[in-house]
Amino acid sequence: VPVESGAGDRAARTAAPARRRPIRIGLLGLGQVGSAVASLVQSRSAAASFEIAAALVRDPRSRPRPAGVPITLHPADVFAAGPDVVVEVLGDLEPARTLLLAAIERGIAVVTANKSLLARHGDELIDAAADAGVPLHYEASVVAGVPFLGPLARRPLLASAFTALTGIVNGTTNYILSAMAATGAGYERALSEARRHGFAEPDPAKDVAGVDALEKLIVLLRHLGCASVDPAAIELQGITAITTDDLRAARDLGGTIKPVIAARWSGGAHDAVEAFCAPAFVPAGHQLACLDGVANGVLLRDRADAGFFFAGPGAGPHVTAITLLDDVIEAATGTVAAPARAASVRVEAPATPWLVRISGAPVSPSVRLTEIFGGAGVQATRVSRGGGSFSLLTSACTRSRIQSLLAKVGATSDSRATALRALGDRGTKL
Amino acid sequence: VPVESGAGDRAARTAAPARRRPIRIGLLGLGQVGSAVASLVQSRSAAASFEIAAALVRDPRSRPRPAGVPITLHPADVFAAGPDVVVEVLGDLEPARTLLLAAIERGIAVVTANKSLLARHGDELIDAAADAGVPLHYEASVVAGVPFLGPLARRPLLASAFTALTGIVNGTTNYILSAMAATGAGYERALSEARRHGFAEPDPAKDVAGVDALEKLIVLLRHLGCASVDPAAIELQGITAITTDDLRAARDLGGTIKPVIAARWSGGAHDAVEAFCAPAFVPAGHQLACLDGVANGVLLRDRADAGFFFAGPGAGPHVTAITLLDDVIEAATGTVAAPARAASVRVEAPATPWLVRISGAPVSPSVRLTEIFGGAGVQATRVSRGGGSFSLLTSACTRSRIQSLLAKVGATSDSRATALRALGDRGTKL
Repeated sequence: VPVESGAGDRAARTAAPARRRPIRIGLLGLGQVGSAVASLVQSRSAAASFEIAAALVRDPRSRPRPAGVPITLHPADVFAAGPDVVVEVLGDLEPARTLLLAAIERGIAVVTANKSLLARHGDELIDAAADAGVPLHYEASVVAGVPFLGPLARRPLLASAFTALTGIVNGTTNYILSAMAATGAGYERALSEARRHGFAEPDPAKDVAGVDALEKLIVLLRHLGCASVDPAAIELQGITAITTDDLRAARDLGGTIKPVIAARWSGGAHDAVEAFCAPAFVPAGHQLACLDGVANGVLLRDRADAGFFFAGPGAGPHVTAITLLDDVIEAATGTVAAPARAASVRVEAPATPWLVRISGAPVSPSVRLTEIFGGAGVQATRVSRGGGSFSLLTSACTRSRIQSLLAKVGATSDSRATALRALGDRGTKL
Repeated sequence: VPVESGAGDRAARTAAPARRRPIRIGLLGLGQVGSAVASLVQSRSAAASFEIAAALVRDPRSRPRPAGVPITLHPADVFAAGPDVVVEVLGDLEPARTLLLAAIERGIAVVTANKSLLARHGDELIDAAADAGVPLHYEASVVAGVPFLGPLARRPLLASAFTALTGIVNGTTNYILSAMAATGAGYERALSEARRHGFAEPDPAKDVAGVDALEKLIVLLRHLGCASVDPAAIELQGITAITTDDLRAARDLGGTIKPVIAARWSGGAHDAVEAFCAPAFVPAGHQLACLDGVANGVLLRDRADAGFFFAGPGAGPHVTAITLLDDVIEAATGTVAAPARAASVRVEAPATPWLVRISGAPVSPSVRLTEIFGGAGVQATRVSRGGGSFSLLTSACTRSRIQSLLAKVGATSDSRATALRALGDRGTKL
């Protein structure tokens, strides 16, 4: 067993020294990411460690195909080609799920970037792989490009220390909110700009509704040993209702609005997890506030509240292809520990601070607010006026509490009140 | 080979399923970190996967010792105890170097946190380990707590993509500068405060002079396949001369001063590396500006200028002990690729922006400055006045260029001029 070092040295280190023949890849899907994998395989003649044994395409007429890649329309041909590792980049649940289970059943190692599949059928796949003794890697499914899922799986002392996470795990929505904050553009214009730069898909529904980020949160919670959680149990809010007024209020209060995932669990009995997936106020100076544009990052916290931050590009065909091929190397050469099925848990919406914004209000809404909020034990920790609206950050409370307070405010005036979750300054729990 | 998942599940995943007996550790050193390792081993009865076979102490009278740890004054006893892995936490060069070489010669896997040893004798240790086919892990040597060195060694496609890094890798100096920035305290008072909180050693010379950070930069450059660099070849500046005026000027210019390491290399022929280790201006919004107190982090950049950020607590006996024991697991169970000796390279001081501060100046120094700087092709990109001094950020130039300009400014007035390196806004090269 040789040493760990010289990570950047390319020639010698793609696989165990004994391996001479290339790692044969069965590629399921030849869309944007699949094509990037194929061309990366072909460009790395120096490393010379991969070859595409067969690539499954679903529509024989679609898109130009990388030269020299054996194409098939039939999954059986991929298995018949004798791949060492199957790489799944089809997306969606089916036929991805069926094909990965078939690969595992045949004893073939599996690499996937499919967070939807992992969020919805992760337990089934992980159990099948464990039963068959087959490696299953999915580093590209969350913050593609930045290795931390696999490393944490290998490092149980560190991984078991975490009891909370916050993160930005969707590049499209981070780009849109960053553009709105930087230029004052409205949501629709920022979305158009994201499309123009290739940062939003033709149908961005899963991104802007928060579903993509929610699926990644599910993958993280399971991977960190917290729980296997039903996506439907977690508070979910998209970014489509965020306005430039919201972003201005956030700036006036010393922060910005980011598309946030957040969760906190006990780390003990693992019997409850508080979580949300929603646009939230993030104070300037918070690690997540430094992630602009399409950048993604996950901040993990341990029991002593120390933060461990992993951030990077998050997406893009090239960086995803690099992550998938590095996973292929790990699958073909590495040994990792056996998993145990995560327990089912109670999911709760957490108490957090809130960014409350009141517009069309009477001249001095602060008196009424102070009265209504103070009567419920909720304090304003920061206040700002401007642009015809009145904004404040509150002390921590639940969503139902803030909603009932906002209803009271609305009932006593003709003002319109909205509330967004807020992360605390560094040192607070989420 | 089983699957990677459920990183947080503790019971089942410390080692390959076949392993039943605990991993036997030969502990070299029983100081603060060594004691933390011993107590972590003893506390983890659930995982039950380690035992201390023997622990070397150097002074039999020193400090209370963890109960149940077999102590010896003789290195030979450690080897005779038949450890699976030797963990070195002695610090300093000798006898650490000799003992690790002896372990490697005996075919025993080695884990160390000793960045001084790796910076000065890393090639020798890595070559010896490679020749003997023995694992050598050193995750705790840089940003202890955050796994990224080992993961990059396993992921050659990603690791070979990097061509630049910036980082904060010393907690003591980050704490001191953070405290000076936050409270307006002077260097000596901030150092006292760091001592009081246990964030500075009784003799903090290696930290405040930048030597500790420099050694970590050397470890990073070798590990990323850039080069084996002589520490003496790199521009080095400590933080002892930084004043509250410097920090005020930095704040007025939209940033702060951080203890920075930075390097950029070609990623091609690997024939030159630009690098420095010095307190530097960091603009607000830069990832490093969000690292306050004792936090550490390393920002790696690839050819496309995408940033990959790994940040965390950086130090502390408990988190270092966790990192060392996770390395022990990797050394006892993992397989990593063979290294190749990094080439020797030319080391250059880079051109960067500079924070120039002029005090005791004539009433309008800007005219003279514009003349002198403009004549040399150096522009002021931001200017600030206040507190009896005049500060500016410049366009990028070399240290020798800025020094000759400052000499000219001094020669034509009775002002005093100082210059600190500056990182650019996001998107610039360092």
